[in-house]
Amino acid sequence: MRMSQFYLPTLKETPAEAEIVSHQLMLRAGLIRKLASGIYSYLPLGVRVLQKIENIIREEMVRAGAQEVFLPLLHPAELWKESGRWYDMGPEMMRVKDRKDHDFCIGPTHEEVITDLVRNEVRSYKQLPLNLFQIQTKVRDEIRPRFGVMRSREFIMKDGYSFDLDEKGLDETYQKMFEAYTRIFERIGLEFRAVEADTGAIGGKSSHEFMVLAESGEDAIAYCEDCEYAANLELAQSEISIKEEYEELKDLEKISTPNIKSIKDLEKFFDLDGCKMIKTLLYVAGDTMVAALVRGCDELNEVKLRNHLGVANIRMATDEEIIEKTGAPAGFVGPVGLKNIRIIADPLVMRIKNGVTGANEADYHYRNVNPGRDFTVAEEDVVDLRTVQEGEACVHCGKPLRIARGIEVGHIFKLGTKYSEAMGATILDENGKERPMIMGCYGIGVTRIIGAAIEQNHDENGIIWPMPIAPFHVIILPIGKDDQIMEVAEDIYEKLIAQGIEAVLDDRKERPGVKFNDADLIGIPIRVTIGNRGLKENVVEVKYRDTGEEVKVEVDKIVEFIVDEVRSRLS
Amino acid sequence: MRMSQFYLPTLKETPAEAEIVSHQLMLRAGLIRKLASGIYSYLPLGVRVLQKIENIIREEMVRAGAQEVFLPLLHPAELWKESGRWYDMGPEMMRVKDRKDHDFCIGPTHEEVITDLVRNEVRSYKQLPLNLFQIQTKVRDEIRPRFGVMRSREFIMKDGYSFDLDEKGLDETYQKMFEAYTRIFERIGLEFRAVEADTGAIGGKSSHEFMVLAESGEDAIAYCEDCEYAANLELAQSEISIKEEYEELKDLEKISTPNIKSIKDLEKFFDLDGCKMIKTLLYVAGDTMVAALVRGCDELNEVKLRNHLGVANIRMATDEEIIEKTGAPAGFVGPVGLKNIRIIADPLVMRIKNGVTGANEADYHYRNVNPGRDFTVAEEDVVDLRTVQEGEACVHCGKPLRIARGIEVGHIFKLGTKYSEAMGATILDENGKERPMIMGCYGIGVTRIIGAAIEQNHDENGIIWPMPIAPFHVIILPIGKDDQIMEVAEDIYEKLIAQGIEAVLDDRKERPGVKFNDADLIGIPIRVTIGNRGLKENVVEVKYRDTGEEVKVEVDKIVEFIVDEVRSRLS
Repeated sequence: MRMSQFYLPTLKETPAEAEIVSHQLMLRAGLIRKLASGIYSYLPLGVRVLQKIENIIREEMVRAGAQEVFLPLLHPAELWKESGRWYDMGPEMMRVKDRKDHDFCIGPTHEEVITDLVRNEVRSYKQLPLNLFQIQTKVRDEIRPRFGVMRSREFIMKDGYSFDLDEKGLDETYQKMFEAYTRIFERIGLEFRAVEADTGAIGGKSSHEFMVLAESGEDAIAYCEDCEYAANLELAQSEISIKEEYEELKDLEKISTPNIKSIKDLEKFFDLDGCKMIKTLLYVAGDTMVAALVRGCDELNEVKLRNHLGVANIRMATDEEIIEKTGAPAGFVGPVGLKNIRIIADPLVMRIKNGVTGANEADYHYRNVNPGRDFTVAEEDVVDLRTVQEGEACVHCGKPLRIARGIEVGHIFKLGTKYSEAMGATILDENGKERPMIMGCYGIGVTRIIGAAIEQNHDENGIIWPMPIAPFHVIILPIGKDDQIMEVAEDIYEKLIAQGIEAVLDDRKERPGVKFNDADLIGIPIRVTIGNRGLKENVVEVKYRDTGEEVKVEVDKIVEFIVDEVRSRLS
Repeated sequence: MRMSQFYLPTLKETPAEAEIVSHQLMLRAGLIRKLASGIYSYLPLGVRVLQKIENIIREEMVRAGAQEVFLPLLHPAELWKESGRWYDMGPEMMRVKDRKDHDFCIGPTHEEVITDLVRNEVRSYKQLPLNLFQIQTKVRDEIRPRFGVMRSREFIMKDGYSFDLDEKGLDETYQKMFEAYTRIFERIGLEFRAVEADTGAIGGKSSHEFMVLAESGEDAIAYCEDCEYAANLELAQSEISIKEEYEELKDLEKISTPNIKSIKDLEKFFDLDGCKMIKTLLYVAGDTMVAALVRGCDELNEVKLRNHLGVANIRMATDEEIIEKTGAPAGFVGPVGLKNIRIIADPLVMRIKNGVTGANEADYHYRNVNPGRDFTVAEEDVVDLRTVQEGEACVHCGKPLRIARGIEVGHIFKLGTKYSEAMGATILDENGKERPMIMGCYGIGVTRIIGAAIEQNHDENGIIWPMPIAPFHVIILPIGKDDQIMEVAEDIYEKLIAQGIEAVLDDRKERPGVKFNDADLIGIPIRVTIGNRGLKENVVEVKYRDTGEEVKVEVDKIVEFIVDEVRSRLS
């Protein structure tokens, strides 16, 4: 490609609309342009990156035994009513009526459509396992689209769905997909971790997220320094050891604590560590209120609470609801004497001795609270509720956990029979018995990968593409006005193209500074600069975008040199 | 691919929902499944064909200097209001509101979005010409979706848009696209014609359609046997020679013609040829009524009438409107004494002598009607209004025209400044003067090509794919239970795959009849059958799907033979 003919509108200024660096660089390097909030057009440079990512995904999915399909955007409401999600999905699912007033949604995901397809075709266990995927635009009307392609309303996903006869089959398919995903992100050239994850609205039994590590990531993950344990912070567990010192149980006392309600203020007032306090948080799940107890030094993990309750959504109770139910404002609620509210407690709370908690009366707390004596919690409601913290011990090996931020680029789920049961996707097994197929689903945020790759690979001058997804492998910069310079550049360019190298020749009549800046901005891995000084010595200069390293290569050897460099970075 | 692992649900029965053969075969051969009216899922065999078509299109577009972009599905209403089409487009454009109540449409085409993109980036004539394309799902809520992927509500289009400084530039770009389209359809292996076409709702100055010739085509085209003239029948013109015999003009007479109103009945009643009758058809354009006159032996061409009127839509007047305006029911209307209605007449009507026409009174006709004497038509309203007929003379060379049916698979338009003016997409020219860019647009119905290819290439047993878009190049059929048969088959299969040939091995435990029928149904161009009888002579049998020709090839030479055959059919 000759840059003079390439549609590449780069920007010098950082657009005000972009908060994070990948969004800024995607706009500045001419990969995307915004059409509307969370809706982007991909320009030629962006399309090149997109297609490279798609091809790697496609190859690895096929290698793992999946077959490509292409499913519709518009889904009839009837299917989503069968699964129940027509009602469960909020406004992020866009709904539309056709000219005959039939209800459709614009597919935010395709479990219903694929389950319908397969239930109509597959009758016998002999036709299983079946693993189908597609690469397609999805629409989700995010409440707050942000970060460019990271959280957009229209995005490209690879979504795949597997159908197995039994759990064992699903386990095998899931493992194959896990390995395929690992290969995909390795091949793309990203630093990532697969972490145990929550199953959320998709449902199902277990799942893993593939997280690209980057400081701007919206997710936090905990991972073990030593073993393979890694989990989304929403789910992560740790081993907490507490010194069990003997302590005499003192009598419960009600203390006046005017306006003292934060843990910090209480620590000061009582001269007591937050880990000896019982934080009582009231949540609403459906139409019932529950009280969740964690230590004052811990953070409640809402996902753990929600999963324990087995509901799709929970929310914090409002001040009015709290007063109505407990008689006290938030900050003065506690489990002692709390009536008609189910209490769920973290195990560490149950080990507190002579602790402090709210007295369910404005401006009063109890001290010398002892769980079991002063209040009780049903055994099944003593469950892990806290968010793990950096340095706590790994539950598998005891080594310290680290906490990092990540961008979710892939997510795989064991769905089980959630959709096949609801929608009657059954098969006859070896004994002629009808049973629901066991499903898995496997997503990759294709467009989001572009953003994640840039978050992980950039410097102050621009993008630093990993070779496998770079829009071009090499950029050739002729610098100077001598005819010979452009002749040499053209010759190298033509020879590289002939060898299958994706080269771009900056043949624009621009100042050297503009060319150097643009080359850095668009992040081509290898730059070949051809100038007067070098040509006198019969050399050109090769510069690597990632390391900044520069080497001089003889003109006669440059083509072979580049071909070798590119191939070695692609394999 | 091993067929035992390929998701290929073929059907023995012809599905009742499918009217035309391509739709039937796409369902039977397991290419597509219906999700809702006019909305289809593509199964793996269909995806393979789709991607081959897409790749050919992509290659030829890039070769012709176009660059690939990827534009959003959801378009903000504001853009469509700028062009005026938010109001002009009917219910075929699906509209949707986001959670903030902003209006969007699901893109039926992308003139507005691309014009917005380019006007924000391109400022100088130096950045032109610019030619951008994408391959993407479009949504149009057809009033009567039919014929499977031929007229569906969701379909894949290649849509491209060009921007030039001046008309000369557009002419050159248009010619390049014309040639690229010609190469695309030639490479796909279709028999087609490029015909002059109406510009319809997209607007613009001139256009060509690319028509795949097939009896089931929804369009009719006229083409010259001898020269290159070809046009959609909506626009086609011909040279009509009429013997100008001397005939004395007789006096106008009003004749009672009770219940006689069809041309056929009139011919009998008056014993007069239909070519001497004046057919008067009343149309409504906007809020005015016009009368269109053609000879009784001709068909009125509504597109020619609409284009002459310069409006987007016309419709036939209702019976009530006709009676109110003329005093007579349809069938008894004529130009003589017709008041307050603009008359538009075909030139051949003006040459009728002593003709017959309605008297604007129920059950009465005039005879001896003479245009010019008994009624007049403004000179500018005497225009070609008739549909040409088979055998009439070509306007270029005088040779007979033929009429054929075609399926529109491509359409290119010279848009001119329709969108750039409405949306302010201007540039500064060499003299620093601001002027609107000159646009062209170029569409290919990607999914429709699959249907068109099948309409043109099938027999009673199934599809006959042209090699360049066949889902597989060759199918290997082991027939019989001897281990040696499967060993030979596997060996050939593996060697073909290694040579880059797309082979499918039918390793299913099915009866030979089932395998032969499926191979014919899915239409793989070359079949290699391996059986006991052949192996005794050390040969396998090659059968060509298109000609039915069979040849025996030695086992040792079969791989080389197939590689040569496939390559020769792909080049």
